[in-house]
Amino acid sequence: MYIGIDIGGTNIKIGIITKLGRILASTSFKTRAPRPYEEIEKNIFDAINSLCQKESIDCNTIKGIGIGVPGMVNSKSGIVLRASNLGWVGIDLEKRFSKLSHKIVKIGNDANCAALAEQKFGGGKQYDDCVFITFGTGIGTGLIINGKIYDGYGGTAGECGHMVIVKDGEECACGNKGCWERYASASALTRRTEMMAKQNPQSKLNNIIAKYKNVSAVTAFEAARQNDEIGKQLVDEYIEYVSIGLINLIQILHPQAFIIGGGVSNEGKDFIQPLNHRVNKFVQDNNIYPQVEVKKAILGNTAGMIGAASLVMD
Amino acid sequence: MYIGIDIGGTNIKIGIITKLGRILASTSFKTRAPRPYEEIEKNIFDAINSLCQKESIDCNTIKGIGIGVPGMVNSKSGIVLRASNLGWVGIDLEKRFSKLSHKIVKIGNDANCAALAEQKFGGGKQYDDCVFITFGTGIGTGLIINGKIYDGYGGTAGECGHMVIVKDGEECACGNKGCWERYASASALTRRTEMMAKQNPQSKLNNIIAKYKNVSAVTAFEAARQNDEIGKQLVDEYIEYVSIGLINLIQILHPQAFIIGGGVSNEGKDFIQPLNHRVNKFVQDNNIYPQVEVKKAILGNTAGMIGAASLVMD
Repeated sequence: MYIGIDIGGTNIKIGIITKLGRILASTSFKTRAPRPYEEIEKNIFDAINSLCQKESIDCNTIKGIGIGVPGMVNSKSGIVLRASNLGWVGIDLEKRFSKLSHKIVKIGNDANCAALAEQKFGGGKQYDDCVFITFGTGIGTGLIINGKIYDGYGGTAGECGHMVIVKDGEECACGNKGCWERYASASALTRRTEMMAKQNPQSKLNNIIAKYKNVSAVTAFEAARQNDEIGKQLVDEYIEYVSIGLINLIQILHPQAFIIGGGVSNEGKDFIQPLNHRVNKFVQDNNIYPQVEVKKAILGNTAGMIGAASLVMD
Repeated sequence: MYIGIDIGGTNIKIGIITKLGRILASTSFKTRAPRPYEEIEKNIFDAINSLCQKESIDCNTIKGIGIGVPGMVNSKSGIVLRASNLGWVGIDLEKRFSKLSHKIVKIGNDANCAALAEQKFGGGKQYDDCVFITFGTGIGTGLIINGKIYDGYGGTAGECGHMVIVKDGEECACGNKGCWERYASASALTRRTEMMAKQNPQSKLNNIIAKYKNVSAVTAFEAARQNDEIGKQLVDEYIEYVSIGLINLIQILHPQAFIIGGGVSNEGKDFIQPLNHRVNKFVQDNNIYPQVEVKKAILGNTAGMIGAASLVMD
């Protein structure tokens, strides 16, 4: 058995995971960041102990602890270089946790953990070379090359959301301009939807927003399904921006598949399907062979935990 | 000993290469494409035989033949999918050559071969993860991951020149718009130089063009060195476009180094040095560690031949 910890900006999830990726037991609590690192560390250890006690699991049967962190992580040195949402800079996480737990500890970037989980136990099981992409507040990506996370020489590769696709484009939180995630994250679609709703107060888009008292990346898809012209335009534009990034990744890495996560991945026939069509038309037109599959991730928000635990599996 | 064949759009180079990457003997002839494949094949075998005879090399001591092709190659099946400059589509090159020569034959994309040569014997010797980039008519790239060419599941990865960096930008020969090579190839700089020279007939740029009776990617660098404002502007813009692509590749792959080839790579202190500075300022500002080296390729136009031969070395 292994412990997988998925540290998120909002929640921290902890699971006891088997070698086959099954969740035996899990718990979670609010991150309440920013607050001192030591507090969060203590909360995590308390939560692990309660969980083991509650489930009558002998701590000695836990073989290792894997931790997914939302930020830039050097997986080789075990240090969190920067996790902006947590306010962490240069935390020697692997060493601290291993000293306190007397277990093998490995850390990884959260998107890389999710990628590893999907590749080992989820939607990417049959692929040795695939790219896992979550469309959320930003775009998280994890590269799987030869069946393993590829995070480069320094342990920080796979930040595909920050490839520039629009020179001198919108400013990104990273300090650069025109990054893919400024146009193709779920938040980008939400922003665009809000803007178009304001500009078109009579549209069905506005009715939907009023009805659910909420705007999200799903709003435009819902409006498009109701045949709203503005909704359809928003979805078309969004799919185009997403495709540009996927096609760039095909030119560079030609993976077997893209495994798509995040809330927007549930828009199967309105998102995954047209995306698949567009990407593979490009592949075919350019004599690139074989085709590249665009598939939905299947582990949902447990992928982070399972993938974190996978870091310490042999 | 191995034979390395570098098939180019203009010349075909053939070398007898040692295990240490030394060229024992070499020859070359004009490609004169497009012409029937069979003619080119015959010319190559005739050239190999003459070369061996001239150098008194027993054909039996040749262990294998490696071939670099300027186009899309499936290195796993040994088939040239498309080499536009040669007019080749779906040529079963590996099988044909191996049937005629009774030797082990391997084929690869020309940029990948050059990358392999630089990594094994040239400017990339100390790096296991590096990206080789030639700025020429287009942008040729070869990815080295864990000390080996990475060409993806289908054998066609590493076409980084066709990543889109300007959405809806200039049309590219590949059919897409806004590809990196439309802005950052040597040809792109030449085109821009021609345009600016026309628009500014009194500039030093024009004097230089008149003096050498020629415009190339080097012209703008020469004008900049002579303190010509337009030359400086051209070089600055060019370096910015090149940087965008390199930084994208850092975000995605974080290699240890970029090994830069093509005529423009000779502009050391005016090209490689500012490029290094700009790329590493970005890396530092983003807490990406370790730094990424930008270095000049050192094997020049022999890299293709040496790398092709490397394909068949154990």
